[in-house]
Amino acid sequence: MAKQEDLFKNVVSHAKEYGFIFPSSEIYDGLSAVYDYAQNGVELKKNIREYWWKSMVQMHENIVGLDAAILMHPTTWKASGHVDAFNDPLIDNKDSKKRYRADVLIEDYAEKLNIKAQKEIEKARARFGDAFNEQEFITTNPRVVEYLSKKNEILARMAKSLDAGDLDDVKLLIEELEIACPDSGSRNWTEVRQFNLMFGTKLGASADTAMDLYLRPETAQGIFVNFLNVQKTGRMKIPFGIAQTGKAFRNEIVARQFIFRMREFEQMEMQFFVKPGEEMKWYEYWKTTRLNWHKSLGLGAENYRFHDHEKLAHYANAAADIEFNFPFGFKELEGIHSRTDFDLKAHEQFSGKKLQYFDTEENKNYVPYVVETSVGLDRMFLAVFSKALQEETLEDGSTRTVLRLPSVLAPTKAAVLPLVKKDGLPEIAKEIMEELKWDFNVAYDEKDAVGRRYRRQDALGTPFCITVDHQTVEDKTVTIRHRDTMLQERVAITDLKNIIDKEVSVRNWLMKM
Amino acid sequence: MAKQEDLFKNVVSHAKEYGFIFPSSEIYDGLSAVYDYAQNGVELKKNIREYWWKSMVQMHENIVGLDAAILMHPTTWKASGHVDAFNDPLIDNKDSKKRYRADVLIEDYAEKLNIKAQKEIEKARARFGDAFNEQEFITTNPRVVEYLSKKNEILARMAKSLDAGDLDDVKLLIEELEIACPDSGSRNWTEVRQFNLMFGTKLGASADTAMDLYLRPETAQGIFVNFLNVQKTGRMKIPFGIAQTGKAFRNEIVARQFIFRMREFEQMEMQFFVKPGEEMKWYEYWKTTRLNWHKSLGLGAENYRFHDHEKLAHYANAAADIEFNFPFGFKELEGIHSRTDFDLKAHEQFSGKKLQYFDTEENKNYVPYVVETSVGLDRMFLAVFSKALQEETLEDGSTRTVLRLPSVLAPTKAAVLPLVKKDGLPEIAKEIMEELKWDFNVAYDEKDAVGRRYRRQDALGTPFCITVDHQTVEDKTVTIRHRDTMLQERVAITDLKNIIDKEVSVRNWLMKM
Repeated sequence: MAKQEDLFKNVVSHAKEYGFIFPSSEIYDGLSAVYDYAQNGVELKKNIREYWWKSMVQMHENIVGLDAAILMHPTTWKASGHVDAFNDPLIDNKDSKKRYRADVLIEDYAEKLNIKAQKEIEKARARFGDAFNEQEFITTNPRVVEYLSKKNEILARMAKSLDAGDLDDVKLLIEELEIACPDSGSRNWTEVRQFNLMFGTKLGASADTAMDLYLRPETAQGIFVNFLNVQKTGRMKIPFGIAQTGKAFRNEIVARQFIFRMREFEQMEMQFFVKPGEEMKWYEYWKTTRLNWHKSLGLGAENYRFHDHEKLAHYANAAADIEFNFPFGFKELEGIHSRTDFDLKAHEQFSGKKLQYFDTEENKNYVPYVVETSVGLDRMFLAVFSKALQEETLEDGSTRTVLRLPSVLAPTKAAVLPLVKKDGLPEIAKEIMEELKWDFNVAYDEKDAVGRRYRRQDALGTPFCITVDHQTVEDKTVTIRHRDTMLQERVAITDLKNIIDKEVSVRNWLMKM
Repeated sequence: MAKQEDLFKNVVSHAKEYGFIFPSSEIYDGLSAVYDYAQNGVELKKNIREYWWKSMVQMHENIVGLDAAILMHPTTWKASGHVDAFNDPLIDNKDSKKRYRADVLIEDYAEKLNIKAQKEIEKARARFGDAFNEQEFITTNPRVVEYLSKKNEILARMAKSLDAGDLDDVKLLIEELEIACPDSGSRNWTEVRQFNLMFGTKLGASADTAMDLYLRPETAQGIFVNFLNVQKTGRMKIPFGIAQTGKAFRNEIVARQFIFRMREFEQMEMQFFVKPGEEMKWYEYWKTTRLNWHKSLGLGAENYRFHDHEKLAHYANAAADIEFNFPFGFKELEGIHSRTDFDLKAHEQFSGKKLQYFDTEENKNYVPYVVETSVGLDRMFLAVFSKALQEETLEDGSTRTVLRLPSVLAPTKAAVLPLVKKDGLPEIAKEIMEELKWDFNVAYDEKDAVGRRYRRQDALGTPFCITVDHQTVEDKTVTIRHRDTMLQERVAITDLKNIIDKEVSVRNWLMKM
């Protein structure tokens, strides 16, 4: 656990130090749970987005793109259920005036019980060594049994009360557990109330004509309201998909874990429209296809797992998460949801317009069913970045930090380095860079000893270092060094483009799927 | 003029019919001045963005990217001057309750005088034919002289009053001109007041801890507040640039002209940091470089012109627009501004943090000067799309609609068409599509006669149609048809990739700069 926390701290500080992610508006002491993508982060993020887009849109004849605006007609969010039901249960402490998510207060309490149990387990493990049977200990040690059963009981009661909308019981639970305000220690709480997570704004200038708008909390609805326009103008035949990447906003009360849960974030969503009754076939298809996409990046199959939802959202008849092994454990990376015809029917009802597809084979109209795949782009960034960041001990006992990004996603594909800053080597190196930059993001670096420059590029995730030395002047060859193996080979300058292209092209990576 | 209006209507309807741009939330009767990019529009927009990014970031060793969040710390907008000065002068009609921009009411009045003058000129031209001397007529005909001098007088007085913040005089001018509410005909006006154009929202849940935020009205400030972080972590040396594309929002009261002026829009900005005193050199450099970028797209050099600003914004010591010949005349497409050290110094002042660069050559610290290049991505889309849309009369007297998009920007690079839907031709066509789609956006179409399919692809701007016919079965050749010339040539299937790549690759287009 301690190790994982260290790893996560390393991720955050490496992201800042090497120009991947800065806190937003940092000179003004930051804006909570909002981050800016820095010079290398923006390229990594663009590459992830592009890798997704190509695999979804370019490679699928029956999937097209869309870029709907962030601002939408407010009735959209009534139809989708967000105005009425997109809430967090909040509670205020009357003494400290601090506001909390009631469910998080309770979860934190439950987690403390869990930690107590884990400590007992670790103590016993240290005492009994190899003879320790953890499973048996958990079910027989009275303290551990008490901690864990209490934890489960609390979480179950909270879930039940929230489901039933029984906020009084949530408050009662907080009182019974004697949960105090983390800030003031006071137990003087208000009632629990629901708070809508959408950011609101106003369109238009005059008070009496202004329209209350929301910043979209998800990109999906932009696809649904455009469904028929796209189907008709694109002459699409079911089954077909509409894919979209774009910003969404949620006014999270407690946003944590770096870019994992932000108030402003980016989604990559695809809504796949199918014949009613065929949704489970496509749901399985997309579960498999999307998992393969993730695995194609080579971060290790063991870092992904499915989590099938037992409890379904009001619009779904099946749902699963692809979870990733983040530095803080397995968490949702992508959701695959069979959304039925809930959204399209709701928009039919609220708009008074038909959103039906005429199926020429069946010779009838129907509202399609929808299977959704939805990845958080920022989570995808965090998954790739955190897994790629590695500390290695080398043969000579020294350590190196290397960012083993999938080369297709690396911000810079190659760095061109003159061995020394004289003898015409910088000129040749610059020529090579000038030629390669037509096709790739390349860097030039002549500062410091070449070993140090290698380390710098390792930390940035650059797959190749191309070194120009005195032999280059003689025979127009250079050494090319591979980030992951640190092996160097001597190659002709004229071969560089092909060597790099083979390793970094989206085409070759998608072929691994 | 009438022709231009028709052209503009064609642009709007073609954009909808062929899946480029839909009104936002159309099923809810739309959201004023907000649009969605449809399945073909999203690809054209992405390609423009990518063409800009590659030319600015990938091709310039000393320019890096950034992706700052839309939500920023609110003090940012105090420092930038937007909280205090980013206003429109508004006036309400007390009877109709309609709100207007006072300056637009006055401009519309002035324009009517202009139209009257133009009508006199046209009448005289019709009467005198070849003997008509327009310049002489304008300066001697009493009616025309009166119309035009009155027009100029009104606009000059308005500009002076707005500059001086004398809103009472603006109101007086409206009264003196007896301007009536276009809706109700009433002249019962309120005072003129300034209205801030930023969209506001609130961060956080509790009323007493909520923070008033704005949706950014420009992307530039995200670059300025990150300037030192980027410079240090990226080890950048002056002169260097930071480039960014992203959404910005302005609560325009009167938004018009389709996607030319929207409430939600996308900017492509680059801020170039230079040594104080060298800004005019770089200002000229970027004027030239950016104009060349536009010209590289081949829409016709005559469609661009510079407009040097005589009146400068408070932060600028030089500014010019690159204007484009839109369907409604020459209007701003891109701005190049020498912003001095205004922004960085303001952020120093408001944040209390130094934003200085240590110049190792000069051995001293200074706040850099900034030269900005700023294109509206949506305007760029409109420029390209409207100029590309052409109606042609063919040799046989028939007409065709063709969207002559620069092929590097075209949403679909090639359509593969089996001549007939039998004899194994669809299977071969699909094989070709499956192979090409690894590298390009390609379409497959087997519906309707092939001539009609060609027209459809012409209207979508697809540069190539690849037709599979009976000869293909014999010798593995196909015909490839060029959108612009409609010429067809017979080529081997194995040559297709190279033929298309040569014509559409970003690399080859950038080389034209």
